[in-house]
Amino acid sequence: MTEIKILKIGGSVLTDKTRFESAKIGEIDRIAAEIAGHSSGLILVHGAGSFGHIHAKEYNLAERFSPEGVLETHRSVVRLNEIVVESLRRAGSSPVPVHPSSSTLLKNGRIEVIETGPVVEMVKRGLVPVLHGDVAMDRAKGAGIVSGDQLVSHLARSLRPEIVALGTAVDGVIFRGEVLAEVRREDLSRIGSELGPSAGVDITGGMKGKLEELLDLANEGVRSTIFNAEKKGMIERVLAGERAGTLVEVKV
Amino acid sequence: MTEIKILKIGGSVLTDKTRFESAKIGEIDRIAAEIAGHSSGLILVHGAGSFGHIHAKEYNLAERFSPEGVLETHRSVVRLNEIVVESLRRAGSSPVPVHPSSSTLLKNGRIEVIETGPVVEMVKRGLVPVLHGDVAMDRAKGAGIVSGDQLVSHLARSLRPEIVALGTAVDGVIFRGEVLAEVRREDLSRIGSELGPSAGVDITGGMKGKLEELLDLANEGVRSTIFNAEKKGMIERVLAGERAGTLVEVKV
Repeated sequence: MTEIKILKIGGSVLTDKTRFESAKIGEIDRIAAEIAGHSSGLILVHGAGSFGHIHAKEYNLAERFSPEGVLETHRSVVRLNEIVVESLRRAGSSPVPVHPSSSTLLKNGRIEVIETGPVVEMVKRGLVPVLHGDVAMDRAKGAGIVSGDQLVSHLARSLRPEIVALGTAVDGVIFRGEVLAEVRREDLSRIGSELGPSAGVDITGGMKGKLEELLDLANEGVRSTIFNAEKKGMIERVLAGERAGTLVEVKV
Repeated sequence: MTEIKILKIGGSVLTDKTRFESAKIGEIDRIAAEIAGHSSGLILVHGAGSFGHIHAKEYNLAERFSPEGVLETHRSVVRLNEIVVESLRRAGSSPVPVHPSSSTLLKNGRIEVIETGPVVEMVKRGLVPVLHGDVAMDRAKGAGIVSGDQLVSHLARSLRPEIVALGTAVDGVIFRGEVLAEVRREDLSRIGSELGPSAGVDITGGMKGKLEELLDLANEGVRSTIFNAEKKGMIERVLAGERAGTLVEVKV
């Protein structure tokens, strides 16, 4: 079977996080072109950026169940998903949208159930499933946000892909002005307090949240990479298996 | 917990099946208004009508795997789903779209896996999950069509709802010009050959296919109703538990 690769592209790369539902169409098209040559085995996950986060904040979804908030937040991220899917299609991939709200159950904000069968079958057939940060039902709290990062970490845990790569708007994990080549669990207490959130509105934890997801994943033996997806050619290099950015390394 | 009701509205009620992607907006709004007073516990499933079926036929999805066919068929039914969801929202329900392609795996055209957790949680929280006939990945054939009828039958089997009602463009199961008050498994051999397909393009089996789904369901102890959703007030009556159309009855 094809080797599985999971690529996440952050909401800050795809959208202007400071402006309501503002997709960076040129960037999305460039990314779609980079992906086109490497789409075999690929699962794509994207963040919500200024599509989902602003709605989720407006309805205070993290704190309070809101039927309208569920619908409007979902609709918003789907609008971004449609733009991404259409761009991939035009670039020559075979994308299919996959909506976590239809397949995922949370409990206190963490994924309890996710049906991955359709995603695996899509990859086997040469399709590129395109998932996204989404609202999802939560057994404890009614509804919550399932971030792209949590989706990546959960999918990677169950599918054990060859490549797990998180494309962000920065070069990797930056500590005192330097990009760390590697991070391990034991480094987090030292560097954690100095990691700021990413730019604009982000309710899903910024770099520290991302790193925590990936360190949990590393604990289970899956390494991953945080790299700069705004730099031309980086996505292609990462999907080809080259090293870039910060490697979140498993324990030695 | 709230009693669950599953209502399916056929594609022929919601769309003009003879014209490409032609939604009957007035009918959809009327139906949404009828549902609004009875949305507690409700799971809504709708057919694809002239949205999905025409694409599925064009790409010959039933016979041959087509990446483009998967995407275009799905996109088409989602367009109808968005119209239905928006109409329900305006009428005062709290709808949430649920896309079977994201949560369902087929094997030779039959549902092998479907994640129902999100649907159940939505109902518990007073939301109305709105599912639809969709394309879905098929472990044997690559991709296939999951009809609204099959979704109803599968959901009903696992959730054991109080009410299972299929709204069509006819008064029920019609045999020699008369609406049958009840149908049981043993009647099918007698009446089966005289049941025509429903009007327009339908790749999912028409009345006979519908009846077979519901008789399988009756075999497992769940009765259901086939009624005319084009007649004003019928949906309200059926959701209130009144008898209408043809009852597909469990074995005595």
